[in-house]
Amino acid sequence: MNALLPGELPQLLLAVSVLLAVARVCGSVARRIGQPSVLGELLAGILLGPTLFGRLAPELFARLYPQAGGQASAFSVLTLVSIVLFLTVAGLEVDLGRLLARLRVASAVGIAGIVVPFTTGFGAAYFWPAALGAEGVVEPIVFALFIGTALAISALPVIAKTLIDLDLYRTDLGALVIGSAVFDDLIGWTLFGLVVGLFREAGPGVVGVGSEVAITVVSVGLALTVGRYLALRALAWLDRGAPDAGGVVAFVVCVAFASAALTDSVGHGALMGAFLAGVVMGGTIETSPRRLIALERLVGVVFAPLFFGSLGLRTDFIANFDLPLVLVVFAIACVGKVLGCGLAARWSGLPASEAWAVGFGMNARGAMEMAMALVALQYNIISEQLFVALVVMALATSAMSGPAMKWLVGRRTRRLFLAHLDPRTFVPFLAGQDRAQVIRGLAQVTAPVAGLDTSELTDAVLAREAIMPTGVGQGIAIPHARMPGLAAPIVALGLSNTGVDFGAPDGELARLVVLVVTPEHDDLIQIELLAEIARTFQHGETRRAVAHARSFAELSEALRGAPRHGAEG
Amino acid sequence: MNALLPGELPQLLLAVSVLLAVARVCGSVARRIGQPSVLGELLAGILLGPTLFGRLAPELFARLYPQAGGQASAFSVLTLVSIVLFLTVAGLEVDLGRLLARLRVASAVGIAGIVVPFTTGFGAAYFWPAALGAEGVVEPIVFALFIGTALAISALPVIAKTLIDLDLYRTDLGALVIGSAVFDDLIGWTLFGLVVGLFREAGPGVVGVGSEVAITVVSVGLALTVGRYLALRALAWLDRGAPDAGGVVAFVVCVAFASAALTDSVGHGALMGAFLAGVVMGGTIETSPRRLIALERLVGVVFAPLFFGSLGLRTDFIANFDLPLVLVVFAIACVGKVLGCGLAARWSGLPASEAWAVGFGMNARGAMEMAMALVALQYNIISEQLFVALVVMALATSAMSGPAMKWLVGRRTRRLFLAHLDPRTFVPFLAGQDRAQVIRGLAQVTAPVAGLDTSELTDAVLAREAIMPTGVGQGIAIPHARMPGLAAPIVALGLSNTGVDFGAPDGELARLVVLVVTPEHDDLIQIELLAEIARTFQHGETRRAVAHARSFAELSEALRGAPRHGAEG
Repeated sequence: MNALLPGELPQLLLAVSVLLAVARVCGSVARRIGQPSVLGELLAGILLGPTLFGRLAPELFARLYPQAGGQASAFSVLTLVSIVLFLTVAGLEVDLGRLLARLRVASAVGIAGIVVPFTTGFGAAYFWPAALGAEGVVEPIVFALFIGTALAISALPVIAKTLIDLDLYRTDLGALVIGSAVFDDLIGWTLFGLVVGLFREAGPGVVGVGSEVAITVVSVGLALTVGRYLALRALAWLDRGAPDAGGVVAFVVCVAFASAALTDSVGHGALMGAFLAGVVMGGTIETSPRRLIALERLVGVVFAPLFFGSLGLRTDFIANFDLPLVLVVFAIACVGKVLGCGLAARWSGLPASEAWAVGFGMNARGAMEMAMALVALQYNIISEQLFVALVVMALATSAMSGPAMKWLVGRRTRRLFLAHLDPRTFVPFLAGQDRAQVIRGLAQVTAPVAGLDTSELTDAVLAREAIMPTGVGQGIAIPHARMPGLAAPIVALGLSNTGVDFGAPDGELARLVVLVVTPEHDDLIQIELLAEIARTFQHGETRRAVAHARSFAELSEALRGAPRHGAEG
Repeated sequence: MNALLPGELPQLLLAVSVLLAVARVCGSVARRIGQPSVLGELLAGILLGPTLFGRLAPELFARLYPQAGGQASAFSVLTLVSIVLFLTVAGLEVDLGRLLARLRVASAVGIAGIVVPFTTGFGAAYFWPAALGAEGVVEPIVFALFIGTALAISALPVIAKTLIDLDLYRTDLGALVIGSAVFDDLIGWTLFGLVVGLFREAGPGVVGVGSEVAITVVSVGLALTVGRYLALRALAWLDRGAPDAGGVVAFVVCVAFASAALTDSVGHGALMGAFLAGVVMGGTIETSPRRLIALERLVGVVFAPLFFGSLGLRTDFIANFDLPLVLVVFAIACVGKVLGCGLAARWSGLPASEAWAVGFGMNARGAMEMAMALVALQYNIISEQLFVALVVMALATSAMSGPAMKWLVGRRTRRLFLAHLDPRTFVPFLAGQDRAQVIRGLAQVTAPVAGLDTSELTDAVLAREAIMPTGVGQGIAIPHARMPGLAAPIVALGLSNTGVDFGAPDGELARLVVLVVTPEHDDLIQIELLAEIARTFQHGETRRAVAHARSFAELSEALRGAPRHGAEG
C-alpha cells in the first residue's frame, strides 16, 4: 500500500472495526430508549473522538485515529465513500412521481421552505456574522450563502422514517411533506453545489455568478429529464437481462460515483452529484428496495454508522460546544423552516394543525445537514464551533419533528389501510352465506381494480383459508392473499347482515369482512396491514360506526374518526 | 481529504466507476459465452491497465490510474477493503461441519493436496529459482516457501460454484472435494501468513521459526474452537435481539476487519485474518446466506469485480507474459495438485474416475491464488512476470476443473433430488384412489422424518394443489409445499398401481408421485428440485426403471443409472 507506512494498515482496519462496533452498539442502545439510531452513532464517534477517548488516552487515540498522514487520508477516503453511498441511497428513496402528483401544494411549501430559511439564515449570517461564529477566513458572502443553504435543506430520510413511524407516510399529509422535502433537497443540494463552487473559485469565477447559476440549473434540469430517461432505459434493459445478476446495483453504484466525480470536478462537490444521481435513478420498479436490498441494507448497516461515527471523530464536541451559538443556530433554523413551511401550507388551504405539522416535519435536518456541515468544515468555510452547532441543530430538529407531528395530527389522520381502500372495493351489502361465496363476492369487486383475474384471486384466498380460517373474533374476518404481479396492496371491505362463519376463536359470525391482497414478495406490508386492521377494529365504537356505513364517504368518516392505538376491548 | 490533492478526488471516484462498469460489462460477456465472470473482470482490468489503455493513452491513464501518490494510495485502500470483504465472504461459505463429517477421507486428500504441491513447488523454486523467475530480491528460502504455498492453495468459491453447476455439490463426491478444499485453504492461508511473517522479519525472527509455527498453529486452533464458540454465541444473541436489524452483518464486518488487523499486525498479512474470521463465523444459521444476503450480494456485485479488475491494472500483461514461465508454473501446479489429491483419493478407496475428478476439482486456484500473488507482488517477493504467470495459472486451472470433472464423473453421479430421498420416504405401493388420499399417505411417511406435523403438511400440500394441480404429464405428479421450521428439503416418492388423477395436461393418471417439501424461505431449492425431477423423468427408460423399483436400493440404482440432461421425450 503506497502511502500507508508499515503498521498503519492494521491500525486503519482496527479503526474502522472499532468505530463500526461502537457505533452499532450505541445506535441500538439509542433505538432501545426510543431515540433515532443516528443519535447513538454520532455519540459513538464523540466517545471515540477528541472529546473523550482523545482526552483519556491521547497517544492511543493519535495512533488509531490520526489527524494527518497516510492513515488519516485512507480513513477519510473510506468515510467519503460511505457518504457518497449514503446520499445515493437517500436520493434513490426520492419518488419524483409523488412530487409531480402534488406539485402545486408541494412546490408552494417547498419554495417557502427554501426561501424563508435561506433568507433568514443569509440575513443573520451577513449582517451579524460574529453571532454565528464566522472566522473571517472566507468572504462574508460565501459564509452567508452557506448558512442560508444549510438552514434551507431538509432531511428526506429522517422525514420519511418519522412519517412511517407515525403511520402517516401513505396519507395526503405524508405525500405533501415528502414532496416538499424532495423539492427542498433538490434545490438545497444545487444551492450547496453553487456555494462550494463560489468558494473554490474564491469569488465569482470566470463565467460569472449568473452564468454559473444558469448552467447549474440547466444541468440539473437535463439530469432530471434526459438523464432520467436514459437511466431508466438502461436500468430496464439491465433488469430484463437478468433480474438477479446484480446489474442494477452495479449500475447504480457506477452512475453515482461518476456523477459525484463530475459535480466535484466542476467545483460543486461530490455529494451533490451522488444525491442527484440517486434521484435520477430512484423511484422506479428497477430500483425498488427489493432490487437494491443489498445496497440499501449494507449502506444502512455499515456505511451510515461509519459516516455518522466519523462525524463525531472530527472535533472535540465539548470544547467546541458554544451554547449561545448552538441556541442562535437552532432558533434561526426553526423559525425559518417551521414558519416558512407552516404558513405556506396554511395559505394553501390546510387546517392549522396540519399546516404546523408540515412545518415541523420539514424542520428535520438529519444527515443532510451533517453532510453539508462536514464538507463546509473540510473546506474551512465554517469553524469547529459552528460545525458542532449545526450537528446539534440537525439532531434536535430531527428529534423534535416526530413528537411535534404526533401531537399536532397523530389523532386525526387516515389509517394506513384506509389508503388502500377504494370506493369500488367497499361492499355495503355482502351477499353469500358461506366463506367461499363471501370471498368470491369481494374478489369480484377487487380483481378488476387490482388488474387481477377474479378466479385466481378467489382461489388464492381460499387456499389461504384452507390452511387456517381468518376470523379474528368480535365479528371481524380478514381473509387475505399475496398475489404475483400486483404493484400495490389493495383492501376491500364488505358488510354482511347475516354474518358468515370464518372460524373465529370466539365463535362469533363475521359481519365485517376485510379482504387484504398484497404483492407476492412484500412480506412487511401484509403484516402491517393485518395488524393495523386488527388494531383499528379493537374499538367497539369503530366497529359499530363502520357497520352502519352505507357509502364510501360514511366509511371513510367512520375510519377517520377511529381512535388510534389503544386498549379498549 | 488530506493527502488527496484538489482534483484527485473526482479522478478517484471516476476511476472506481469506470473500472466497475467495464468489469461488469466484461464479466457478463464472459458469462454469456460460458466462461466464469472473473475472467471477464480480470480482462477489464487488463484493458484499462498498462497493457492496453496505458499504451494507447499514457497521459489519460496516468491521471485515472496513477501508480504513486495520494490517489494511488486511496485507490489501493479501496482495493484492499474489497479483498478483505471478498475473503471474508469466501470464509463464510466454509462449512466446518461438512469437513468434520468426512474428516478421514477429506483430511487424507487435503493433506496430500497440501504436501505434494507444496513439496513440488518448493523443490522447483529452491533448486531451479531461475526457471521460476526469482529475481534474487528475497532470500531463496522465502521465495521457495511462497511458491510452495501458492501452489498448495485451493479456491473454495470456484470449486463450490463448479460443483453446483455440475449438480455435484450435494453429492458424496462434492462433500469430499469441499471438505478437502476447506482443509487446504485453512492450511494454505496459515502457511501464507507464516511466509509473509518470515519475509517481513527478513529471515527467522526473534522467536525463531519453530516457535513462530507453533504460535500460529495454536492461534488458528484457538480461533477455530474458542473463537468460534464465542462468535457463535454473540451471533445467536444478536440474531435473537432483532433478526432484521443488520446486527449480524455489522458484527461479521467488525470481526473480519479486527481479525485482519490482528493478523497483519503480527506480520501474517490482513488476508489470512479476513479469511479465518469468515471461517470462524461461517456455516451457521445466523450467518446463512439469507441473513448475510446484503453483504454477500454487494461483495459479489461490486467488491469482487473491483478486486479482480484491479489485478489487471497492476501490470502490463503482454510485456510481462513470459510463455516458458507460464507453462512451467502451470505444469508444476497441475502435477502437484492433480496427482497429489487424485492418488490420495484413489488410496482412500474411490473409483479411479472419481479420484481424478477430485484431483481436477482441487486443482482450481481461482481468486485465492490471485489474492496471494497480489500480496506477494506488493511485497516484492515475486516479479511481475511471475505475477502474470500465477494469475494465468489460476484462471486456467479454474477453467479446466469444471469440464474435467464433468467428463470424468458427470454421467454417473447421484441426482440432486436423490440426495433428499430417504429409505423411509419411498412408498413402493401407494394406497388411495384420489389426490387427497395419496398426498396424505406420502405426508404420513414424510412428516416424521422431517419433524413436521402430518396434518399440517397434508393441509399445506392440499392448499397448494387447490391453486393448481401438480400433474406434469407422462404419469408423473409432483405435489409440493414449503413448510416453516424445516431445515433441509425432503423428497418422498410413491408408486401407484392404479394411477391417480393429478389434473395433468395430457390427461394421464399419475403412477409416480414425488412429494417435495422445502424450507419456507428457500425459493431456489424448490425450483431446482422441481426442475431436476421433471428433467430426470423426461426419459422413458428412467420412468420404467423407477416404476419397477420395489426397494430403496432398486430405486437408487434406477435413478443413478438415469441419463443426465437430454432431449428424449
